[in-house]
Amino acid sequence: MKKYSELSKGELTELLEQEKKTFQKFKKDKLSLDMTRGKPAKNQLDVCLSMLKILSADGVDFVQGGQDVRNYGLLDGTPAAKELFAELFDVSPDMVIAADSSSLQLMYKLVQHGMQFGFLGERPWNEGKVKFICPVPGYDRHFGICKAFGIEMIAVPMDENGPDLKVVESLAGSDDRIKGIWCVPKYSNPTGVVYSEKTVERLANMKTAAADFRIFWDNAYMVHGFYEKDDKLKNIFDAAKKENQNRIFTFASTSKITFAGAGIAALAASKENIAEIKSRMTYETIGPNKLNQLMHTEFLKNKDGVMRVMKKHAEIMRPKFELLVSMLEELSELGVGEFTRPRGGYFISLNVPDGCAKKTVALASEAGVKLTPAGATFPNGLDDRDKNIRIAPSVPPVAELEIATRVLINAVKITALEKLIG
Amino acid sequence: MKKYSELSKGELTELLEQEKKTFQKFKKDKLSLDMTRGKPAKNQLDVCLSMLKILSADGVDFVQGGQDVRNYGLLDGTPAAKELFAELFDVSPDMVIAADSSSLQLMYKLVQHGMQFGFLGERPWNEGKVKFICPVPGYDRHFGICKAFGIEMIAVPMDENGPDLKVVESLAGSDDRIKGIWCVPKYSNPTGVVYSEKTVERLANMKTAAADFRIFWDNAYMVHGFYEKDDKLKNIFDAAKKENQNRIFTFASTSKITFAGAGIAALAASKENIAEIKSRMTYETIGPNKLNQLMHTEFLKNKDGVMRVMKKHAEIMRPKFELLVSMLEELSELGVGEFTRPRGGYFISLNVPDGCAKKTVALASEAGVKLTPAGATFPNGLDDRDKNIRIAPSVPPVAELEIATRVLINAVKITALEKLIG
Repeated sequence: MKKYSELSKGELTELLEQEKKTFQKFKKDKLSLDMTRGKPAKNQLDVCLSMLKILSADGVDFVQGGQDVRNYGLLDGTPAAKELFAELFDVSPDMVIAADSSSLQLMYKLVQHGMQFGFLGERPWNEGKVKFICPVPGYDRHFGICKAFGIEMIAVPMDENGPDLKVVESLAGSDDRIKGIWCVPKYSNPTGVVYSEKTVERLANMKTAAADFRIFWDNAYMVHGFYEKDDKLKNIFDAAKKENQNRIFTFASTSKITFAGAGIAALAASKENIAEIKSRMTYETIGPNKLNQLMHTEFLKNKDGVMRVMKKHAEIMRPKFELLVSMLEELSELGVGEFTRPRGGYFISLNVPDGCAKKTVALASEAGVKLTPAGATFPNGLDDRDKNIRIAPSVPPVAELEIATRVLINAVKITALEKLIG
Repeated sequence: MKKYSELSKGELTELLEQEKKTFQKFKKDKLSLDMTRGKPAKNQLDVCLSMLKILSADGVDFVQGGQDVRNYGLLDGTPAAKELFAELFDVSPDMVIAADSSSLQLMYKLVQHGMQFGFLGERPWNEGKVKFICPVPGYDRHFGICKAFGIEMIAVPMDENGPDLKVVESLAGSDDRIKGIWCVPKYSNPTGVVYSEKTVERLANMKTAAADFRIFWDNAYMVHGFYEKDDKLKNIFDAAKKENQNRIFTFASTSKITFAGAGIAALAASKENIAEIKSRMTYETIGPNKLNQLMHTEFLKNKDGVMRVMKKHAEIMRPKFELLVSMLEELSELGVGEFTRPRGGYFISLNVPDGCAKKTVALASEAGVKLTPAGATFPNGLDDRDKNIRIAPSVPPVAELEIATRVLINAVKITALEKLIG
C-alpha cells in the first residue's frame, strides 16, 4: 500500500471519488453509533450485578469500625473501604479517604480547597493568578475544573513516557503561580500511555517554584489493563523523597470496576494532607454513603477480588481495542493516521493530518457515527493543530464497532485526500 | 411545688444537699448514656431495611429516563428521584436537583458558589466581607459552613413563630454585605418551632439590601411530625412574589427517612437558579449515585410511601419526646428550666438560668450522660448568656432516656441551686 503522499493528484482524486461513494453508502444505512464517551458497555455493567444482593443477605453485619453504617459518621469512610483502596494504591490506610462515587468531585474539592483556603499554611491560591500544567492530549474534565476556577492552563505535549519532562520541569521550576499538574499516569486518557519509572521519579522530585505545588495523580485506570501481564506503574509515594510527600494527591474510583457513577471514589495523600483535608471536609459532610461502601467491600473483599472483576472487563474490552487498532493500521500505512495502541484504559488517541480533526469528526457524524468533539482533549477545547481525535471504543458491541470504525476511517481518508488535493 | 426563687437560703441549701446525694448515687451507677446527636436510633434504622432487597429483585428495570442508572449520566438525578422530591417540596420537578446523600454538602456547595462565582450575574461574594443571619439557637453545622468560609455570623433570636422578624428585616434591609440567612423552618433545630405563615411570607418578600441575598431553607424535618395531625408549613415558593423566587434555596434529604448518611439529598430552587447550579455542577461531577436513587424511589414510590415510613418513625420518637417533656415540667415548675414541646423533629431546646448551661452539661457528663456541648447552638459556639442546652432524645431507648433525663434534671437543679445560694 502506497502512502497518499506518494500518489499523483489524479490518483488522489480517483481515491477521493471512491471514498465519497463509500461515504454515501454509509449515509444511506442511517447509522446511529456512539464512540464519544469512555463509559462501560452494558455487558460490563452486568459484571458486578450480584453485588446488589450483598446487603439483603441474611446476617449482614452493619457495624463497621464500631459504627452502624446505616447511621451518620465515619467522615473518611469505613475502615474496610479505606483498607481496600490502601491495598490498591499500595499505601497505608491512614493515607486514604474513601468517599462517595465521584473521584472528579474529590479533585474539584481539592482544587477548591487550594483556591479558597490554601494548603498546609500557604496562602490561598486565589490571591493571585493560578496556572496548571496540562499534558495534552488529556482529560477534558480535568481542564473543566481549571476552567470553572479561572485557572490558566499551560499545555505540555505527551510522549510515550508521559508528559515532556523538560518542559514540565522548566515551567514548574520557574513560576511560583503554577500550582499543579494533571496526570493520568496509567493508560492515560486518551493516549493510553503508562508513565515510565523515570517520569514518575522526576515528577515526584522536580524542583517547584511554588512550595504548595500539587500533582493531581488521577489513577483512574490503575487496574484496567487488558492483558495477563499488567503494566507496572511506579508508586509515586515510594518515588518521592520525604520532603516531597505533600506534593501528591492521588485519586481513583470503582466507577469502571463495579458501576459507573455508583461506586466508591477515594484519594490518597500524606498523613499531613489527609489531616488537613478531613479538617475541611467536616464542614461539608457528615460522611459518605457507607452502605454503598459496605456493599462494595463485602463483594470485592481485596485487590485479588478487584482483579477477578477486572479480568472480566478485560475480556470485553480487549477484543474491541484489538479490532480498532488492527483496522486503524490502514491509516498508518497510508500516512494519514498516527495512533496509540493502549494495553489498558478506555481510549485510543488518533492523530490525523494537521487541520483534519474537526472535519473528520463532522463527516463521521454526518454518517451517523458520533465521536468526541475534536479539540476536547485540549485546554479550552483548542487543539492548535486540529489533529487529535479521541476514540472511545467501549460502548458499541464489536459488530457495531467495526462499522463505526469503517466510517471513521472513511472520514479520515476523505478529509486527508481533500487536504492533499487542495 | 414552690419555685426555687421563693425559697429561703436555708431551704435552698437543704435541697442542694439532697440533689448532691442523688448525684453521687448516679455517679456510682457508672452510666454511659448519650443525648448529643440528632441521629436515628437503631430500631429506626430497621424501618427501611427491606429497601436493601429492592435492587436484587428479579426484573428490576435499570433504565430510568432513557439511561441505565448503572452508568454515568443524569447530572441532576433520576427523573423518579426528582419527582419524589418535587412532590415532597410541592414544586415542579424541573425545580429539583436530586443528589448524593448529604444535604449539608448541597448547602456547602451553594455557599461556595456564592463565595467564589456569585449568583445570576452578581459579583462573587468573597470580593468583600460576607455576613449571614443566624437565628439562635440554631444548627451548629450551618454555622460551621459560615466558619469554613470566614463568613461573619449575626445571631438573631428565635421565638415561637421563627426568627425575630423585626431584627431580620432591619439587618437584611440595611446591609448589602448580608448575603443569607439559615432557616430550619419546620421542627426547627433545636427549638422544634414551625415557622408561622406570616413568618414565611415576610421572609420570602422582605426588602433586602443585597440583590443576591439567599434564604437557605433547610427543610430537614418536613415530614418528621409525631402526630396524626401534621403541622403545616407554608410553601415558601408560593409565599414569594415572582421577583423574589430566586432568593430561595430549599434543602432536604431522606437521611432521617431511610438511612442516615446513605439516603438521597435534594435541593429545590427557581428554574433560573437550577440552570445556573447545574452549569456549575457539571465541572464537579458526572452525576449522583443513581442506583441509590433507584432503590429509594422503587421503595418509597411517592409522598404517601414516605408518610407510611414516617409513621413508623413517629411511633418510635413520640414516646421519647413525651417522656422527656413530662419529666422536664418539674424544672419549669421550679422556675429553673424553660423548654420547647416539639411536635416533630429531633431536638428539644432547654433554657436553664443564665450562666448555668456549661456547668449543667459538665455535671451531667461527670455522671455519665453526654449532652451536646453548651453553646453549640450558637455561632462560634458562643452562647452569651450560657443558658441553652440542646437535648437529642432519639438515640437512647426509653428506659435509658428516663435515667438520662433524671441525671439532666439533677444537674440543672444543682447548678441552679448553687447559683441562687451564691
